[in-house]
Amino acid sequence: MSALLDLPVELAPVQAHVARGLGRVDARLRAVLTSDLEPVQRLCRHVERYHGKMLRPSLVILAALAARPDHAAPIPDLPAPDVIDVATVCEMIHVATLVHDDVLDEADTRRGARTVNDLTNNESAVILGDFIFSTAYRLCSRLGSTATAEQIAAAGMTLCEGELLQNHHHGDWAISEPTYFQIVERKTGSLVAVACALGARHAGAEPGVVEALRTFGLDLGVAFQIQDDLLDLTGDQRVVGKSLGKDVEKGKLTLPMIHHLRVCGDSARRDAVRLLEDASRPGDERARELARALHASGSVAYALDTARRLVARARAALEALPPSPARRVLDLLGEAVITRTS
Amino acid sequence: MSALLDLPVELAPVQAHVARGLGRVDARLRAVLTSDLEPVQRLCRHVERYHGKMLRPSLVILAALAARPDHAAPIPDLPAPDVIDVATVCEMIHVATLVHDDVLDEADTRRGARTVNDLTNNESAVILGDFIFSTAYRLCSRLGSTATAEQIAAAGMTLCEGELLQNHHHGDWAISEPTYFQIVERKTGSLVAVACALGARHAGAEPGVVEALRTFGLDLGVAFQIQDDLLDLTGDQRVVGKSLGKDVEKGKLTLPMIHHLRVCGDSARRDAVRLLEDASRPGDERARELARALHASGSVAYALDTARRLVARARAALEALPPSPARRVLDLLGEAVITRTS
Repeated sequence: MSALLDLPVELAPVQAHVARGLGRVDARLRAVLTSDLEPVQRLCRHVERYHGKMLRPSLVILAALAARPDHAAPIPDLPAPDVIDVATVCEMIHVATLVHDDVLDEADTRRGARTVNDLTNNESAVILGDFIFSTAYRLCSRLGSTATAEQIAAAGMTLCEGELLQNHHHGDWAISEPTYFQIVERKTGSLVAVACALGARHAGAEPGVVEALRTFGLDLGVAFQIQDDLLDLTGDQRVVGKSLGKDVEKGKLTLPMIHHLRVCGDSARRDAVRLLEDASRPGDERARELARALHASGSVAYALDTARRLVARARAALEALPPSPARRVLDLLGEAVITRTS
Repeated sequence: MSALLDLPVELAPVQAHVARGLGRVDARLRAVLTSDLEPVQRLCRHVERYHGKMLRPSLVILAALAARPDHAAPIPDLPAPDVIDVATVCEMIHVATLVHDDVLDEADTRRGARTVNDLTNNESAVILGDFIFSTAYRLCSRLGSTATAEQIAAAGMTLCEGELLQNHHHGDWAISEPTYFQIVERKTGSLVAVACALGARHAGAEPGVVEALRTFGLDLGVAFQIQDDLLDLTGDQRVVGKSLGKDVEKGKLTLPMIHHLRVCGDSARRDAVRLLEDASRPGDERARELARALHASGSVAYALDTARRLVARARAALEALPPSPARRVLDLLGEAVITRTS
């Protein structure tokens, strides 16, 4: 979370609670994602380097803190063990999808570490992803709540549906905005939403608060994805820390591109499609050229504005919770998701 | 199951019970593996054609019938809903691994139908496999028994460990027999064992009976795999119904080959390794040539004998159950697993 937020000093106790919680999530992940077979164990230890912003486990912990019925009580040292486990499950499911994404993208590095497919081969990377999914669901079953396990599995299904729909529209330059939102709500929103809702649920929150946090997570997840899309087109490669123009490279239309193709007029549309289809040039070069056109047509501003409206709606959902330092951090996190530069 | 067994007429009521149960498994699979998104739904319907021998769901149903405490009562029309669901989960996990196997093998047909990767692309096939896994685990969570969900997820992990260990030993001509058994017990035995154990558990069997059926399943699964390995080398392609020599093609050593390389002497070993490494010739041609050498060295007989001893041990485990028509079918199924020609 520290990658996303610079918090005022009065919120330091919340930040410390989350940081200690994330430390426990790390330890839990190391404890459950393990094998007595040395070659498997080596791969398990390798994917630990995939941890990035830890957005999903941070949200589980923050939602649990903000939603606890005794919200005015002192902030405890650590989140409850159940909350740690839910956070660990959410992070594992996210990591499993990253391992599979890397196979499909033929990526060789992620967050500075070699990808599993590059380190071993595609076979092992696909199966390691399956191993991580199964490990996540086993930890779920140990939570003793079949409702939690069901919600996690349902989010896993929804996430896959979003990715399948996205693949179905690969290279489809006529994709509509509603279809884009269907894809993003499922592939990114669903797991973020369930992270927030289950954090609240395991803190003993009443249904209204659980649902408010689910809404918050869904909108926040979609806004996060729009900002990801924007950074891929207009970010600073040195700050973002990964090569840009990947969406262009993969024939994946994102919100600013969809808007541009709708509003820019026939001639500019032909130029844009020519660029999108010109596989002879690297994606980052094409993205830079497209970004100029997207700024001119107001499409970058449109996407940013859409993300802002989603964050405003997410923050409004927090009104269902009593004011607390944890709610304040969730509120600031909403803002940070769309102002981040990496 | 009908593909594996020709039963005497007095066992017809058991056979009818299993057949009706498998019909329900099919219907359940169609009901849960579904999506409101048309492109996803189309893929879900496509993988229904992957059903093969239905070994795992048949075993769940048979184990439940053989293990029920009131084993002398008339055979009911249908298995209990829980038993159907456990059988459906086991089949779904098996199908998910098949979808991923096909991506890794770059296979274009399975059981006469086009593979998902061939029908769409590798991306969609990997994600569809993940979708099926998640659907299986969601159905698990609805069983209301966290112990069952945990055992299924643990079997999923073990299965992946077996496949990862197998990949690790890709092209390793010095792989030992204990390592081979470690691979096969995990990748094939684990899910068959849990199918039998959970069938018994959900029939209300006592722990001793559940564990006897777990042992039965583990040994049966390994014997099934050895017979698969033998058919790949020495089967009749028209009867087996798929191209032979796939293990040779993939650099995967199986029990008869491991035995051959150990006992055949330096000169024959050099010949065999040369054949295994000669990627310029098709796998089935090399498999036929290797099969002749393996017959001569007694390695085919050795593998068959090993499978026979495993089946004998599996059948001995059934002694913990009271005699019943269902137990008799399990007994005959053990025999059929190693005498099958397809």
